[in-house]
Amino acid sequence: MPRLHFPMALRWSDMDAYRHVNNVAFLRLLEDARVLAFHGHDSDDGGSMLDNGVLVVRHEIDYLAPLHWRPEPIRIDLWVTDIKGASFDMGYEVLDDSDGDGAPVVYARAESTLVVYDLTQGRPRRLTDGERARLERLRDAPVDLRRRRTQERGGR
Amino acid sequence: MPRLHFPMALRWSDMDAYRHVNNVAFLRLLEDARVLAFHGHDSDDGGSMLDNGVLVVRHEIDYLAPLHWRPEPIRIDLWVTDIKGASFDMGYEVLDDSDGDGAPVVYARAESTLVVYDLTQGRPRRLTDGERARLERLRDAPVDLRRRRTQERGGR
Amino acid sequence: MPRLHFPMALRWSDMDAYRHVNNVAFLRLLEDARVLAFHGHDSDDGGSMLDNGVLVVRHEIDYLAPLHWRPEPIRIDLWVTDIKGASFDMGYEVLDDSDGDGAPVVYARAESTLVVYDLTQGRPRRLTDGERARLERLRDAPVDLRRRRTQERGGR
Amino acid sequence: MPRLHFPMALRWSDMDAYRHVNNVAFLRLLEDARVLAFHGHDSDDGGSMLDNGVLVVRHEIDYLAPLHWRPEPIRIDLWVTDIKGASFDMGYEVLDDSDGDGAPVVYARAESTLVVYDLTQGRPRRLTDGERARLERLRDAPVDLRRRRTQERGGR
Repeated sequence: MPRLHFPMALRWSDMDAYRHVNNVAFLRLLEDARVLAFHGHDSDDGGSMLDNGVLVVRHEIDYLAPLHWRPEPIRIDLWVTDIKGASFDMGYEVLDDSDGDGAPVVYARAESTLVVYDLTQGRPRRLTDGERARLERLRDAPVDLRRRRTQERGGR
Repeated sequence: MPRLHFPMALRWSDMDAYRHVNNVAFLRLLEDARVLAFHGHDSDDGGSMLDNGVLVVRHEIDYLAPLHWRPEPIRIDLWVTDIKGASFDMGYEVLDDSDGDGAPVVYARAESTLVVYDLTQGRPRRLTDGERARLERLRDAPVDLRRRRTQERGGR
Repeated sequence: MPRLHFPMALRWSDMDAYRHVNNVAFLRLLEDARVLAFHGHDSDDGGSMLDNGVLVVRHEIDYLAPLHWRPEPIRIDLWVTDIKGASFDMGYEVLDDSDGDGAPVVYARAESTLVVYDLTQGRPRRLTDGERARLERLRDAPVDLRRRRTQERGGR
Repeated sequence: MPRLHFPMALRWSDMDAYRHVNNVAFLRLLEDARVLAFHGHDSDDGGSMLDNGVLVVRHEIDYLAPLHWRPEPIRIDLWVTDIKGASFDMGYEVLDDSDGDGAPVVYARAESTLVVYDLTQGRPRRLTDGERARLERLRDAPVDLRRRRTQERGGR
């Protein structure tokens, strides 16, 4: 099972005036899961993949159930869905399995495209073989986005 | 030209440790453009569309150029791209036309799906005829997302 | 020892363009420590102190050392420094004792004044005897703010 | 009149679950007023005071009236209250004079201590004569904090 799991603490301020965890706050949580994932994966030249620069060029997110603040962490699952020459896609699920039995509640599913960036040159660079190998170990199925189901039925 | 234009002030804290306006901060800017758009569009029963509840169920965003903090506002264009029974889609462009000549720089393009919500009943409701008419007046072309161009060439 | 201790996860976005945890982000961390503290202290009528409404009317904070983002949580200590009829003061230290030996690094010290609020009446209310007793159990010394040391030497 | 005045746009997300502009969000607004103030005041060597590094080492803030989100900007007044060898104090008022007649509503008063910092050396530095002269032009009375009134009556 190649998915990484991160328990993530909510902040009280993640709630908005509707007393829900705000839709933008979800993207913040995904950012932290991503940073923690990169933090543990050193690149070939000794620095972490993050220090060598990863640029977000795309997000797509479905909100599936309202999430309220609570002191217990939620869980974020993170995996790799696609690998190209100079970019890769990550999938995420924001979920709660705290009750322990049955299927967890899924609050959101999302996908990001990340471009690997040479910060000293100021431009995209190709993934190294080592990076590709490490990303491959996290590869799992595409994210089950509503748009994809609609497209299979003929939608845009 | 049905697009609404909003000048939006950046905040210094929109920058992250890379000294770019952070990808999540863009979604915050879109939220404020959306709130301002709703604020000026009263619904049939006297309250604004926002007070009757609009729930974000989907975002998709392409980041096209890095944006740095500056004291001058950027511009957000906002329009309606689709209208369904109980939901509608909005398109946005984050751009800068401050130099006055030539095409503006586009920093991001995005699309959101919003479900109209009956807050007292706690469930989605249908758009009223008045709401549909007002949304129709803001309707413009679908957002030119990279995914759509790729799909026309046979991608996913 | 009446101080409460909370491990608090930093978020990558707590860093600002100087790559330090931003001064405003510290106040966010204190908010979460406060919310967690209230969450475990039920008031006389069954709701938590927070649900009955606590309004921040004052903050004072000294920043003592730069804090950089890291995956490990920092520690926030929280205690009560003063109790009045309808308000009380809380003290905080943001610190790190992760290396295990010697005195912890203190990144910030702060103090807040909180007014107990009757949300249904929309006005301050008096602390109940039960609330006072619970706050007394968390009482510790005043916060060692630089201003106080200066004032003892004759400053403003 | 040496005070600077900045109209500042609120963001909808400045509201918290109580539908007030959150106490921490006020500090964010002060940060932007400060950044805008520094942005217009070049230092002796051509860069702005901000680029040469200013470090916040202390905030003190009184919240005086609840502020709700609205599309119209609020006003932040900013001035200098004290100048020392390597640091200075700034005063702020967050207020609203939009109704045009009578005294404006004051939502908050605050004071910050800022240390001038040599970023290349990584340590505090002394204010230059030019910087002192520019700060002197913004000097006005100390901030009317509740603590100061209490201390005049013998409190801590």
